[in-house]
Amino acid sequence: MSQYLLIKKVYETKPVDQTVIVRGWIKSLRQSKKFSFMVVNDGTTQKDLQIIVDGTLGNYEEVVKLTIGSSVEVEGLLVASQGKQPVEMQAKRVHIYCLNAEDYPLQKKETSLEYLREIAHLRSRTNTFSAVFRLRHELAQATHQYFSNESFAYLHTPIITASDAEGAGEMFRISTLNLDKLPRGEKGAIDFKQDYFGRETFLSVSGQLEAETFAVGGLGRVYTFGPTFRSENSNTARHLSEFWMVEPEAAFFTLEDNAQLATGYVKHLIKHAMEKCGDELEFLASRYAPENLKTLEHVMNSPFEMVTYTKAVEILQESAKTHKFEYPVSWGMDLQTEHERFLAEVYFKRPTIVTDYPKDIKSFYMKLNDDGKTVRAMDVLVPGVGELIGGSQREDNYERLTKRMSDLKMDPTNYWWYLDLRKYGSVPHSGFGLGFERAVMYISGMTNIRDVIPFPRTPKNAEF
Amino acid sequence: MSQYLLIKKVYETKPVDQTVIVRGWIKSLRQSKKFSFMVVNDGTTQKDLQIIVDGTLGNYEEVVKLTIGSSVEVEGLLVASQGKQPVEMQAKRVHIYCLNAEDYPLQKKETSLEYLREIAHLRSRTNTFSAVFRLRHELAQATHQYFSNESFAYLHTPIITASDAEGAGEMFRISTLNLDKLPRGEKGAIDFKQDYFGRETFLSVSGQLEAETFAVGGLGRVYTFGPTFRSENSNTARHLSEFWMVEPEAAFFTLEDNAQLATGYVKHLIKHAMEKCGDELEFLASRYAPENLKTLEHVMNSPFEMVTYTKAVEILQESAKTHKFEYPVSWGMDLQTEHERFLAEVYFKRPTIVTDYPKDIKSFYMKLNDDGKTVRAMDVLVPGVGELIGGSQREDNYERLTKRMSDLKMDPTNYWWYLDLRKYGSVPHSGFGLGFERAVMYISGMTNIRDVIPFPRTPKNAEF
Repeated sequence: MSQYLLIKKVYETKPVDQTVIVRGWIKSLRQSKKFSFMVVNDGTTQKDLQIIVDGTLGNYEEVVKLTIGSSVEVEGLLVASQGKQPVEMQAKRVHIYCLNAEDYPLQKKETSLEYLREIAHLRSRTNTFSAVFRLRHELAQATHQYFSNESFAYLHTPIITASDAEGAGEMFRISTLNLDKLPRGEKGAIDFKQDYFGRETFLSVSGQLEAETFAVGGLGRVYTFGPTFRSENSNTARHLSEFWMVEPEAAFFTLEDNAQLATGYVKHLIKHAMEKCGDELEFLASRYAPENLKTLEHVMNSPFEMVTYTKAVEILQESAKTHKFEYPVSWGMDLQTEHERFLAEVYFKRPTIVTDYPKDIKSFYMKLNDDGKTVRAMDVLVPGVGELIGGSQREDNYERLTKRMSDLKMDPTNYWWYLDLRKYGSVPHSGFGLGFERAVMYISGMTNIRDVIPFPRTPKNAEF
Repeated sequence: MSQYLLIKKVYETKPVDQTVIVRGWIKSLRQSKKFSFMVVNDGTTQKDLQIIVDGTLGNYEEVVKLTIGSSVEVEGLLVASQGKQPVEMQAKRVHIYCLNAEDYPLQKKETSLEYLREIAHLRSRTNTFSAVFRLRHELAQATHQYFSNESFAYLHTPIITASDAEGAGEMFRISTLNLDKLPRGEKGAIDFKQDYFGRETFLSVSGQLEAETFAVGGLGRVYTFGPTFRSENSNTARHLSEFWMVEPEAAFFTLEDNAQLATGYVKHLIKHAMEKCGDELEFLASRYAPENLKTLEHVMNSPFEMVTYTKAVEILQESAKTHKFEYPVSWGMDLQTEHERFLAEVYFKRPTIVTDYPKDIKSFYMKLNDDGKTVRAMDVLVPGVGELIGGSQREDNYERLTKRMSDLKMDPTNYWWYLDLRKYGSVPHSGFGLGFERAVMYISGMTNIRDVIPFPRTPKNAEF
């Protein structure tokens, strides 16, 4: 019996003049009475395998009826080829697993990305989406490799939580209460003590606070890579209700160390993608974003710019004299995507790390600067996308942190365990968050975030 | 300025006679007027660093007041040592970040695992939990490496779902509806069309069905590694409401291929753990499970036994003549943990893969055998734990699958996309699920599942 080879392995080892078995799905066909060409792929590589089936084959009357998307096993001789790929196969035996009917939704060569979202269970069968998801896989592998090499331990922070890490309040409630018989307390309020967890619980918006507990005094350096959730009603090409986030957190890291870690991570992602997914990146660039490879090369080889928020505002105000912004810029406001992109694309022409934002537009846990007005925050802006990473050095001073929480009317008793980190063994520490889908968009060149996650969750959409 | 080194790197590179900087937390202390010994760890290794501080040091009056858990930066000369570790440090400068007060909860040498669960935000500071979580990290790395090497792509299946993959119904509801103003439809039923996703949604119990959509016709081989949820009211040492699951799914895999993949995975986990976490495994074994390393060696070096369910029942019935079981065994019933452990621990004395279970005790999607009574299921049983992995070849025949669903009174319209995989390009395919915490328990030797996940979620418990 011949050896079964993944098509990826066929191209890696090129065992020309050997008879092997491949299995896969038919991407395209040219049939005639004398012979047929089948183009087959098994999903492990961007490269298809061309198979020639001679009309003398035993079951040729079945082969000639094959349709696109049908599944086959083919035993055949691999031979060198002058075609698009260096090898092709001469079939000796064709076994048909499943002959597709005419109503197969992917018959047509060109199908819109919008239509493919409606059949997301089949879209990984297209060249575009198999490329995107192999790339996504490699970016995930690169993430684990990078942080592991930097001595960060992968940490699974809880998804179900009673605390609101960002204080933003846009959370999904989790419950097993019977909605038709909600238990009520004395004053008629719902009695969450009777709910599954004995309290009101939500889907986590970030694992940062829990990650800090492991960084400070525990493992020193940790990172999360897990799903996070926002229930905001945003129906845009950049927002998902469920998305994956990477959140490193490191004891003894200053904001500068943090910026260096983020820079190294972004560059590693690109480098790894280019090494492992050259075919995928080329295909996606040719189809959707012709300039993408050049942009990625540039990012990989440029030092990232660092600029304070205050300086960035000055630059934007000066630039507004010649460049038209939709929103005028003033100190104290959050930067809009148009401003972020201007800084990275037009002004500095490379990834830009903006630091030391006004405290009033940033989260409670960020370390206050001595000016009393700004915090040790950083946003990493990249050309084409805008903000890719947001992070900060954390407030490690107990008094300053509780003061800040009370200014924001937060109840410190809900954060007793978080405050403990500032009482016991407190050290300078920093971390950041990267929205993984934003990174996949950025590196793939895809422009809708729904096209880089297997089954997107957005308002009014939880199909599949 | 001297180089800052993680303590892990100190032991990897042993730069004796060099002056370096380390940062960490004090694990133990011996102080006197003339000199002090501090044992310091930074969480990156099981090995502590001993530091000798001479009484002549500038701020010695502060050093002599240091307490356990306090955080320090020490610059000093590394010297060879005859002590427990091969190097120690002679301090030249000690900087104190935070001096711990006397109420630090981890002062005492011995604290119970139960008590530590109540301060889970601090327990990674103990030798036990830093070992467990470094091991957990390495097992996660090993998982990604193993499946990536086997050409499986990492897939992020959705957490929020409208379908019940197992048909077991023990799911958490997700909603943003205002519980005090629930929208009602015509007949008074709650109108989930007005909920965030426009339908009733839950936390996923498995990513398998979605993974199948990517395996069949798409990427060919995929695996998930993400959180899954059960709302059953089980307060045991083996159950969590939120846990991480690894679910590979492969096109063209028979049950035998599946069993081989599972065997290779378990062995790889153990091998990787032994290579990367020798110190951690030794520490945990010495403290909690003296026989554990021997067991792991044995599993790594043994072929796994394969036995059908029918044969296993015969063995158990025969064994019941001399071995007392709490539950008697008869064909058709699900095996209890005592039976599973008997097979793996007493009868075969090695990991045992039981196959071809009665269809009535298994899920709807498992492939029916020609006997019409059993399905191509497999459970991997390991000594000490019982079931570690459950999997199956999937039913790939459209008629058989819809027949089975209708027998079980399932509505096929809810599974239209899952059924499409049997209409278009259907192929034999298989997969399995491994409860990641079970694997961490098994390899660490810890006996309570709450002690191998950072922040356990169980009935009435969602603290931190």
